[in-house]
Amino acid sequence: MSGLNNAPERGFTESEFAARTVKAQAAMAKTGFAGLLLMTEPEVRYFSGFHTLFWQSPTRPWFLFLPATGKPIAIIPEIGADLMRKTWLDDIRTWSAPAPDDDGIGLLTELLSPFALSGDVIGLLKGHETQLRMPLGDFERLSAGLGGLHWADATDIIRNLRMVKSEAEIEKLRYICAVGSRNFATVPQTAKEGMPLEEVFRAFRREALLQGADDVPYLVGGADQGGYHDVISPPSRRPLQNGDILMLDTGAIWDGYFCDFDRNWAVGAADDASRSAYDVLWQATEAGIAASRPGATCRDLFAAMKAVISKVDPTGGDVGRLGHGLGMQLTEWPSLAAWDDTVLAENMVLTIEPSLSYGTGRIMVHEENIVVRQGGAELLTERAAPQLPVI
Amino acid sequence: MSGLNNAPERGFTESEFAARTVKAQAAMAKTGFAGLLLMTEPEVRYFSGFHTLFWQSPTRPWFLFLPATGKPIAIIPEIGADLMRKTWLDDIRTWSAPAPDDDGIGLLTELLSPFALSGDVIGLLKGHETQLRMPLGDFERLSAGLGGLHWADATDIIRNLRMVKSEAEIEKLRYICAVGSRNFATVPQTAKEGMPLEEVFRAFRREALLQGADDVPYLVGGADQGGYHDVISPPSRRPLQNGDILMLDTGAIWDGYFCDFDRNWAVGAADDASRSAYDVLWQATEAGIAASRPGATCRDLFAAMKAVISKVDPTGGDVGRLGHGLGMQLTEWPSLAAWDDTVLAENMVLTIEPSLSYGTGRIMVHEENIVVRQGGAELLTERAAPQLPVI
Repeated sequence: MSGLNNAPERGFTESEFAARTVKAQAAMAKTGFAGLLLMTEPEVRYFSGFHTLFWQSPTRPWFLFLPATGKPIAIIPEIGADLMRKTWLDDIRTWSAPAPDDDGIGLLTELLSPFALSGDVIGLLKGHETQLRMPLGDFERLSAGLGGLHWADATDIIRNLRMVKSEAEIEKLRYICAVGSRNFATVPQTAKEGMPLEEVFRAFRREALLQGADDVPYLVGGADQGGYHDVISPPSRRPLQNGDILMLDTGAIWDGYFCDFDRNWAVGAADDASRSAYDVLWQATEAGIAASRPGATCRDLFAAMKAVISKVDPTGGDVGRLGHGLGMQLTEWPSLAAWDDTVLAENMVLTIEPSLSYGTGRIMVHEENIVVRQGGAELLTERAAPQLPVI
Repeated sequence: MSGLNNAPERGFTESEFAARTVKAQAAMAKTGFAGLLLMTEPEVRYFSGFHTLFWQSPTRPWFLFLPATGKPIAIIPEIGADLMRKTWLDDIRTWSAPAPDDDGIGLLTELLSPFALSGDVIGLLKGHETQLRMPLGDFERLSAGLGGLHWADATDIIRNLRMVKSEAEIEKLRYICAVGSRNFATVPQTAKEGMPLEEVFRAFRREALLQGADDVPYLVGGADQGGYHDVISPPSRRPLQNGDILMLDTGAIWDGYFCDFDRNWAVGAADDASRSAYDVLWQATEAGIAASRPGATCRDLFAAMKAVISKVDPTGGDVGRLGHGLGMQLTEWPSLAAWDDTVLAENMVLTIEPSLSYGTGRIMVHEENIVVRQGGAELLTERAAPQLPVI
């Protein structure tokens, strides 16, 4: 239970939310946005501190409006009013939801009408890795009632802001990554030949909670003779066998922040091809970590890893990228990909995640979590063993 | 570990997916839809069997196209191809995602262009409790490239289909509800005076896994002197105290199907107001269960519960409804609300969830899960104790 005692404080100070809001407003002023309408869980939480698993229910929409100056305004179902009142927000407008005829549209129309009359531009998230978390029909109805208002894509503003973490955010990420590392260290004691993969998953989740995670929303993996075949499957009931390569990839969460990394093991004995694939990926990870400095681009990191992987596998698997941002979501902007020229800045938190294909349809993935620091990468995860561990 | 041995088979037979598809196509024929474009996790899984936690990552969109006849067509990121090939689908089209410049839009345009040329109507989900799980900008770009194509709301088709569960779905729901019931039965042994609420949550999650749940994506609750204040909060570190009313509300999951119910306890001693609130809600639940028959409307169930609750609390709290559908999502259509005139049909699975406000800002919620059967409700959860249990 040692994990539970050294946990940081939950939540953030009001100054953290104020700083985020002021930064967003500065960017809004540059682009000429009169406000931002946000409705996705990470964005609502990022600016308000409103933190609840109730988002699991798809029934009710939740809105946060960021004006050009001043605190954000919440437009939310009444069921969330009590919790929202505990945040730093002052202006909380609620309706009795669900209400299919008017699920917040009336309140939003009232709020946005003055902007429509002035022909203002209101930002919302329309870009890559975003979603419209309200019924499309309601969005069309809202827009139709706001003639004169111009919607514009605010993805860049939110992306640039959220990619760079505060020290308070990094503290949470460091904690959950340490929990994940301790948890992976227990797997050799738990996962034995003959144990169904489903039971390996179950034991892993239980241990993660014991080590101090709030939950394990993401756990995938595979195990098969001489290598696994895909990296997004739920577990089968197939028992672990001598000669299996086992991989577990976890997104555990603490206070709303994720770790996201994996580990590989050979069960009983490791075949040469898997050992060799492991070596290459371990070196590719080293190259990715070494390249993670302020001023480098995501493309640079991709190229550094790709150069190592190409020695074995010119395709590199087709997972589309070799790492990504990490924070309030399992995967966040940016992408470590050839097409992403985002320049790394201090305090970005990234996964370094090289993968390759080998043998007959085998795939292997390595993953570590880092913070980009002035002097180079700070490793949040305990580095994987340099050779494929046999359990 | 007894829970793990009596678990049903995972997944569904191909005939289950074929039946769902044929039913959807019959409804499409009636409304004149040439196809349905689906992109949310439950819908993609419902028609294909594609089941992965990878949806936790917001980065990549996933599409399923239901043609007027024949099997669904998957348009998905290459990373999911191996898993999708294990489903009953034959036509799987992939691209190397993420790719901000073309995240499936090219493939969708190719697929839908013939329909655009014919001026056809393609359904998608635009209605209540739905979301657009792709970037709004991409949707606008796709639509602009398909001049002549008409989008129409297909929410009613999917809603009518998904509300009524097959026996295979009910078997999964019965199993996870039994797991939940066994888990709640252990709480009096675990939750003691002095135990921080956060630890109560952690123990509850660990025990749920032991009892046979795959995961506990949803767990909220509260504990406070003489009653709790809201029902969507994450746990505090406040230790349980004598005189607290403790509530835990869980959405545990097995093979992609949820239970969703809660239990209430008094710690050490129960105050009169809480005991009285409990009695009324227990009776309101009885009334809701008794009213759950084919032919009754959701409004009828709401009214039956409301009539009991009104004896104590004319407002009934402001949670907007007194129950909802249950299945692949924590909350599904329909709503047990005054505005929902959905007629109950055999094999609908519902939560019966009366709540009330009492004292100074206290709230109490009861919840059970049922199947609507010809002879009346089949209870999936072990009925809550008739009097407020003291632990």
